[in-house]
Amino acid sequence: MPDLFKTVALVGKYDSPEVGDNLPKLADFLRSLGYAVLISHNTADQLGVVDHPTAALAEIGQRADLVVVVGGDGTMLSIARMLAGHDVPLVGVNQGRLGFLTDVPVDSMFESLAEILAGEFVAENRLLLNASILRCGQSIFSACAFNDVVVSKGSSGRLVEFETQVDGEFVYSQRSDGLVIATPTGSTAYALSAGGPILHPSLEAFIMVPICAHTLSARPIVVNSHAVVELKLLYGADARVHFDGQSQRDIKVGDIVRVTRAPSLIRLLHPKTYSYYRTLREKLYWGKKL
Amino acid sequence: MPDLFKTVALVGKYDSPEVGDNLPKLADFLRSLGYAVLISHNTADQLGVVDHPTAALAEIGQRADLVVVVGGDGTMLSIARMLAGHDVPLVGVNQGRLGFLTDVPVDSMFESLAEILAGEFVAENRLLLNASILRCGQSIFSACAFNDVVVSKGSSGRLVEFETQVDGEFVYSQRSDGLVIATPTGSTAYALSAGGPILHPSLEAFIMVPICAHTLSARPIVVNSHAVVELKLLYGADARVHFDGQSQRDIKVGDIVRVTRAPSLIRLLHPKTYSYYRTLREKLYWGKKL
Amino acid sequence: MPDLFKTVALVGKYDSPEVGDNLPKLADFLRSLGYAVLISHNTADQLGVVDHPTAALAEIGQRADLVVVVGGDGTMLSIARMLAGHDVPLVGVNQGRLGFLTDVPVDSMFESLAEILAGEFVAENRLLLNASILRCGQSIFSACAFNDVVVSKGSSGRLVEFETQVDGEFVYSQRSDGLVIATPTGSTAYALSAGGPILHPSLEAFIMVPICAHTLSARPIVVNSHAVVELKLLYGADARVHFDGQSQRDIKVGDIVRVTRAPSLIRLLHPKTYSYYRTLREKLYWGKKL
Amino acid sequence: MPDLFKTVALVGKYDSPEVGDNLPKLADFLRSLGYAVLISHNTADQLGVVDHPTAALAEIGQRADLVVVVGGDGTMLSIARMLAGHDVPLVGVNQGRLGFLTDVPVDSMFESLAEILAGEFVAENRLLLNASILRCGQSIFSACAFNDVVVSKGSSGRLVEFETQVDGEFVYSQRSDGLVIATPTGSTAYALSAGGPILHPSLEAFIMVPICAHTLSARPIVVNSHAVVELKLLYGADARVHFDGQSQRDIKVGDIVRVTRAPSLIRLLHPKTYSYYRTLREKLYWGKKL
Repeated sequence: MPDLFKTVALVGKYDSPEVGDNLPKLADFLRSLGYAVLISHNTADQLGVVDHPTAALAEIGQRADLVVVVGGDGTMLSIARMLAGHDVPLVGVNQGRLGFLTDVPVDSMFESLAEILAGEFVAENRLLLNASILRCGQSIFSACAFNDVVVSKGSSGRLVEFETQVDGEFVYSQRSDGLVIATPTGSTAYALSAGGPILHPSLEAFIMVPICAHTLSARPIVVNSHAVVELKLLYGADARVHFDGQSQRDIKVGDIVRVTRAPSLIRLLHPKTYSYYRTLREKLYWGKKL
Repeated sequence: MPDLFKTVALVGKYDSPEVGDNLPKLADFLRSLGYAVLISHNTADQLGVVDHPTAALAEIGQRADLVVVVGGDGTMLSIARMLAGHDVPLVGVNQGRLGFLTDVPVDSMFESLAEILAGEFVAENRLLLNASILRCGQSIFSACAFNDVVVSKGSSGRLVEFETQVDGEFVYSQRSDGLVIATPTGSTAYALSAGGPILHPSLEAFIMVPICAHTLSARPIVVNSHAVVELKLLYGADARVHFDGQSQRDIKVGDIVRVTRAPSLIRLLHPKTYSYYRTLREKLYWGKKL
Repeated sequence: MPDLFKTVALVGKYDSPEVGDNLPKLADFLRSLGYAVLISHNTADQLGVVDHPTAALAEIGQRADLVVVVGGDGTMLSIARMLAGHDVPLVGVNQGRLGFLTDVPVDSMFESLAEILAGEFVAENRLLLNASILRCGQSIFSACAFNDVVVSKGSSGRLVEFETQVDGEFVYSQRSDGLVIATPTGSTAYALSAGGPILHPSLEAFIMVPICAHTLSARPIVVNSHAVVELKLLYGADARVHFDGQSQRDIKVGDIVRVTRAPSLIRLLHPKTYSYYRTLREKLYWGKKL
Repeated sequence: MPDLFKTVALVGKYDSPEVGDNLPKLADFLRSLGYAVLISHNTADQLGVVDHPTAALAEIGQRADLVVVVGGDGTMLSIARMLAGHDVPLVGVNQGRLGFLTDVPVDSMFESLAEILAGEFVAENRLLLNASILRCGQSIFSACAFNDVVVSKGSSGRLVEFETQVDGEFVYSQRSDGLVIATPTGSTAYALSAGGPILHPSLEAFIMVPICAHTLSARPIVVNSHAVVELKLLYGADARVHFDGQSQRDIKVGDIVRVTRAPSLIRLLHPKTYSYYRTLREKLYWGKKL
């Protein structure tokens, strides 16, 4: 089924010597199979790759039929966010310990990619969050997140106070270190450290996880992905909003952080042997079958 | 819109003197509005109600257009399970502290019911679980649950060991006091005490919450309501399965407890002023708006 | 037993109009009983109190036999830290909701103080922490804390990585939002929000509570109060140390935060009716006797 | 320093073929070093050991200067409880994964024991609990526990309700699956699964950990080891008390379970290289130094 994918793009983790070794090999391998190869500008510059065409990420989003990300979950996270809206599937090749999002090991990358390109894969759609910061009723900033939107106290170390609404209905006022609003993908990241549950990726849901809430009976709440979550800052001079832990923005008292489901999805392809629960077991040291 | 409901059934909590006061008043009130009234056999017997027709619960399920349950959440739970499959909507009148399922206070029951009967209500569908116990591949017992199916250690106080699969995929082996598999409705009951999150009732999802797991990194997992959850008992001489904490069944090593979504739904009607999050705030002492 | 206390000092919460009403009344009342009264400079300036002698806090520490703090737990916390080492007992008068440390209500302050001054009290010694920041083996900063010493990530929102030793023995390396090291007094403050247990004030122990640790099996550890706890920062460009949430200090990678028991104790006096567990029940909404 | 120990007793885990291999070797080794060897009756019977003198456990408690337990933590737990009051130190040899209490690996048992017998050891005193069941003011049962005393619901799966007092002061009424009262030794056993903190073994403290409490703000409380903890059962037809999970006793509504510090201590000897925190890291998968 070589018609599925004609152009395959490669994007690598920056500043990683191992990517420098493996990404060019992958490019040659793909060309040898007859695929058109595109390498992201930044990756090519950094690695000094000269014998394959290059493109900016936005162009890759338009031209590629498949994007192979070589790196860890952090790399996949930032590339996926930048490609959101382009409807191009992603595969993650991991050179270290396997990640939740990057589940093709370098050791078997040729076989796994050949299989995937031949149509032997498990496809998964992952939700994204969209967050806007509203000041005096106007959106002053907007960004999307693949893992989570986190409203948190800032550098002073003092708590934040905020009020939360879901679909216009008042949920709670809270004094805490902040609130994590996470996708199922993000449920195994920061939200998990803050005490949240694991959401299977197939769920159309988000999770709101308080961080060190003063009210001891505060609990994580799982809401429908079509819910509109709004958080209004009541106190916290230097509060801020974090997107996937990769970018952030200061907010002021009175600002509203509105979080909704993003219109687009991230499409991940996995080898046929992929198992979400096996990854969980390995990452969380749950041990083997008794 | 009086055509919506013609026959209204009343079911009361057993052994409750207050129900004895209020339920007959409610029956008279409904008759005065022109509705046909049916009282459950057991309720009528207990309360000595003689001036309204009575019926068994199964008949109520077939003939009534609306069932009013007078009691607390425990009463609603057991009535709802027994009426599952009859597709008749339920309203809960609570005489004590408001419940999650019984949200019409006695003080305003006449007004609230008049409104609901006039078509002024918020309707909600709630998921049910279906659980079968398989021994040597044969189902030896089957029951449904509105809140939760709990596999737990028995009277010896020793732990259970089991292996869990979701959709045929191995999830984990676990040594613990047991596992709660809960609906969104049940997420605010035992599952919450065991450390689970709150699932909004609109979610088509179940939650698996370990009870005192030996593996400290065990976490609640929220799965799609269409998932097939199977738990195979590996150790635990006197383990048992509990259905809504109201009935139970012993299981043996090797038995499989298979939990799926029940084909039918529970339909709850609430007054227009109903707010799920307000109930949460009140029940969990989250406090008021700051 | 009027010999116990001759000079009683009064210190009030800043910027509180209610303190302005009550503190002068208390001063007059104490003078009428024959006690020498001292008012802290700052309090007198703010309240415009002119008919009682005033003194700086250090002088109060030396001259007073009892210090009455009028305000909330935050006020008591800061005054207690400043008076640490002076060995003068403290009483807390609270004007709002009762605190853990300020347990004499304004409504009964005359009776309660008269009783306490007459020798009718429950005395309690509370531990303090001492924290030093070591850079290249040299102490560059040192402070004490009544509640807690918190090492936390800073404004970037990124995690910190550190290594912990207790009595020279390696305990764990951790990636997290930070670590709370709390006294029994502090165990009901921030440490509790972060998931720590409650330590009865009579315990000679400290508690180390991780904040959102990546390792899901991380747990709070209670150590002997004579332990030397050392935390070495391995990663975290803008990490900082907080003392009772009231002051803070930046630290750098390689810095060691050494926490030990302070040589002095805080001595609190309570009315005879004082009950630690009643305060717990009220503050944590544990409800009444069933 | 061979004068320290003259008579060394050996006790093995029942039904363990590996103990059958190693225990006789250990006996011969100790005799070859000039120590008098005593083997417990039960162990000798089971293993068919005939060439060493045997004794009942009570006699061992009186005659031995050191008891070597060969097995896992469960074996050590039961032997230690039976020897409580005899003031004889214990060493644990573990044949499987190292335990918290049995920290000499079989592979190095000759070297480690030779060192310990020569006076090269780290000694540790561990607290024991004493629990009495009072009915109508009379003690009807009494037992000690090394890990924990657990009051729990029984086979019905219904909750228990009880009221707790510490030193005669009311602490809380609770609806839950039960309560764990643990020593520092037991803090890494069942109490940890129930959400309790880790208590360093040097602490003179106990921990009360609720099991699945209905009140969401319930938290573990660490109390002084000299506290008298009393739990009065208010509801729970088939509640029971468990001692180290090894023996149990039914209790009735109205019964009081009184838990205090036992007068005697358990004395454990460890090789010089022993590290409590290393054991924690290994057992809880905390990972290595970063």
